[in-house]
Amino acid sequence: MDVLTTQVAIIGSGPAGLLLGQLLYKAGISHIIIEQRHADYVAARIRAGILEQVSVDLLKQAGVDQHLNEVGLAHEGIEILTDGVKHRIDLHKLTYGKQVIVYGQTEVTKDLMQARQQANLTSYYEAHDVQVHDFTSSQTDQSSPYVTFTQDGQAYRINCDFIAGCDGYHGVCRASVPQDKIKTFEKVYPFGWLGVLADVPPVADELIYVQSDRGFALCSMRSKTRSRYYLQVPLTDKVEQWSDERFWEELKNRLDTESVKNLVTGPSIEKSIAPLRSFVTEPMRFGQLFLAGDAAHIVPPTGAKGLNLAASDIAYLSSALVEFYTTGSQQGIDEYSEKCLKRIWKAERFSWWMTHLLHRFESDSEFDLKIKQAELAYVLDSEAGQTTLAENYVGLPYELKALELNH
Amino acid sequence: MDVLTTQVAIIGSGPAGLLLGQLLYKAGISHIIIEQRHADYVAARIRAGILEQVSVDLLKQAGVDQHLNEVGLAHEGIEILTDGVKHRIDLHKLTYGKQVIVYGQTEVTKDLMQARQQANLTSYYEAHDVQVHDFTSSQTDQSSPYVTFTQDGQAYRINCDFIAGCDGYHGVCRASVPQDKIKTFEKVYPFGWLGVLADVPPVADELIYVQSDRGFALCSMRSKTRSRYYLQVPLTDKVEQWSDERFWEELKNRLDTESVKNLVTGPSIEKSIAPLRSFVTEPMRFGQLFLAGDAAHIVPPTGAKGLNLAASDIAYLSSALVEFYTTGSQQGIDEYSEKCLKRIWKAERFSWWMTHLLHRFESDSEFDLKIKQAELAYVLDSEAGQTTLAENYVGLPYELKALELNH
Repeated sequence: MDVLTTQVAIIGSGPAGLLLGQLLYKAGISHIIIEQRHADYVAARIRAGILEQVSVDLLKQAGVDQHLNEVGLAHEGIEILTDGVKHRIDLHKLTYGKQVIVYGQTEVTKDLMQARQQANLTSYYEAHDVQVHDFTSSQTDQSSPYVTFTQDGQAYRINCDFIAGCDGYHGVCRASVPQDKIKTFEKVYPFGWLGVLADVPPVADELIYVQSDRGFALCSMRSKTRSRYYLQVPLTDKVEQWSDERFWEELKNRLDTESVKNLVTGPSIEKSIAPLRSFVTEPMRFGQLFLAGDAAHIVPPTGAKGLNLAASDIAYLSSALVEFYTTGSQQGIDEYSEKCLKRIWKAERFSWWMTHLLHRFESDSEFDLKIKQAELAYVLDSEAGQTTLAENYVGLPYELKALELNH
Repeated sequence: MDVLTTQVAIIGSGPAGLLLGQLLYKAGISHIIIEQRHADYVAARIRAGILEQVSVDLLKQAGVDQHLNEVGLAHEGIEILTDGVKHRIDLHKLTYGKQVIVYGQTEVTKDLMQARQQANLTSYYEAHDVQVHDFTSSQTDQSSPYVTFTQDGQAYRINCDFIAGCDGYHGVCRASVPQDKIKTFEKVYPFGWLGVLADVPPVADELIYVQSDRGFALCSMRSKTRSRYYLQVPLTDKVEQWSDERFWEELKNRLDTESVKNLVTGPSIEKSIAPLRSFVTEPMRFGQLFLAGDAAHIVPPTGAKGLNLAASDIAYLSSALVEFYTTGSQQGIDEYSEKCLKRIWKAERFSWWMTHLLHRFESDSEFDLKIKQAELAYVLDSEAGQTTLAENYVGLPYELKALELNH
């Protein structure tokens, strides 16, 4: 068995793990990333595409914002289409100058992997049988957590001070916490999102969130030549039932006349159905193990909070670890879970609310539908209502003055 | 049979009917009020106690704001108590100077009845077997609706141009509309409000809306010496199960330490359990019959919108009738239903939301409870969130420029 020693063992090489690695590297804290998948698989995963300003700032701090600055599209507004009429939410004006950046998660991952390669940082991909050990004792015990795994038949043990569980919803870290120490909250939605990626120009410059009698739709994009469209579909639907032709036809059925006219269709380069889930784990710290990103919480994609919440966890976690190694103070570590969860629940609330408001639920009574309609009408008619949507969409501020990320 | 003729027959002598009568009288339009109950019963009914500024303005226009101005309490804020901590919503600041007036519906009714008596206007109380006839034909037909009833064994027929159905949820007017012409939307809540009226000074200067694990509570008032308190209770509870002692004890269980210390208890002078219901009728006009107030819609009392919605219906209706008799234009009449419903649904949404957020529902999952907690935390932490609460609480503006009621 090869035995290695590092300060922080990071389980998972998605955006959360990679970003944490980069921030620790910048701060001179040693770490190793252990990932069960192949690097190519990680790099190719297609996920969200909207970055909050605080997430962009964090990527800048990690030194990986060059490509983002070159090709990311700054969006100062979104459109809400309801009853066949588009209403623009002026994010920029309503939030005193904030915006979001359209930049695919795939690109973020690639940028971080490239930076990692350039800095020659240690990662173990295709790590099998990953296990996390001895993390539950408190810091003052001077106990030493460690991680074990095998790669290419070789067994490894990594001794460390801390373990960062960035290994997603199905990962080993959360699963390794004793059941009586953890509480989970969950809601599964009775529909999915059918997503199509196509190399066609987007139907409009800004995203269009569509509330219609036929269900929700979203016109999004990855760039000025690559579009991402979604349709609310029953969970029982299979991708095979949705030819490109049927997809575009149904999308048109949910759009307004102008958008239908401007829509450019083309062959899909990716098509998939994703379920929608709300999920939160409490707490997010167990001794020397921290959960971050999807390992601790899932939001439905409405509102585009998933990647941004992973980023905010990493902002709090990197700050706490830097504080610990610089000053010896455990304050950031001790506050990690509470601070993260405060912001997470607000984002969960927002994502639930957007999902609730814009989707068609079979269980909605006629009264429920009227109330939703009235809520949407109120939000769109009222500056305060619009502001609640806008300030959540661009991202609530971090409670992290040291990093000056508080916008 | 006695046959009378008037321009507008008003069915129901609650605040809606009385206010309409007064406004028509001021505009020189003849009317008669028909009410099945005794005048003393009407005058004694205890209902809501919070007036929006637009309602106060309408009472002023009707010339019945003298007593209100003398004893009404202007409130510039409310308190929301959650997790044992009070948070003040500064209505005045958040809405650029608006406020609400604490003044009991009982007082409003008395003022209106007194004004009516002084002007010597015609009312038929204890009218039995009230029926409304021939109202469904369109105005251009020159058909004539009429109302029939008996009083003290004498039969009456009132010929009129219009019938105003201000006769409440259980009234004859809505029930007289053909079933296929009307659509209703309804939600019944799985709990009630146990209300106590007591001649003790209020626990605080402003209202306290209480969200607690034991259920909702409300500390309200009618004056500086008369308090009105409410507790969320199961619908199966009977008033007899709630001694004054038990009521005060349970109220204390739901309050914060400071409020418990300041609470002055005393014998109840009224105690009752009211169910909570959301209910809307569409449309609100059927030929020459208009529905207004509780005849067309009910809100749960959270948010204090019931009386204020009746007032806004009457603002629209009186304006439409004055327009018709002054200029011959039917525009206000034709727009009555749509305009009313637009504001009503927003108030229904707000009342539903306040009820949903502050009450304990047996059906709430642990996830639902966390989302509610996060929503309340967001609303209280965000100025925009607070403003959405405040601007709805003080009342959304009327779309009624002619009356200059648009604040």
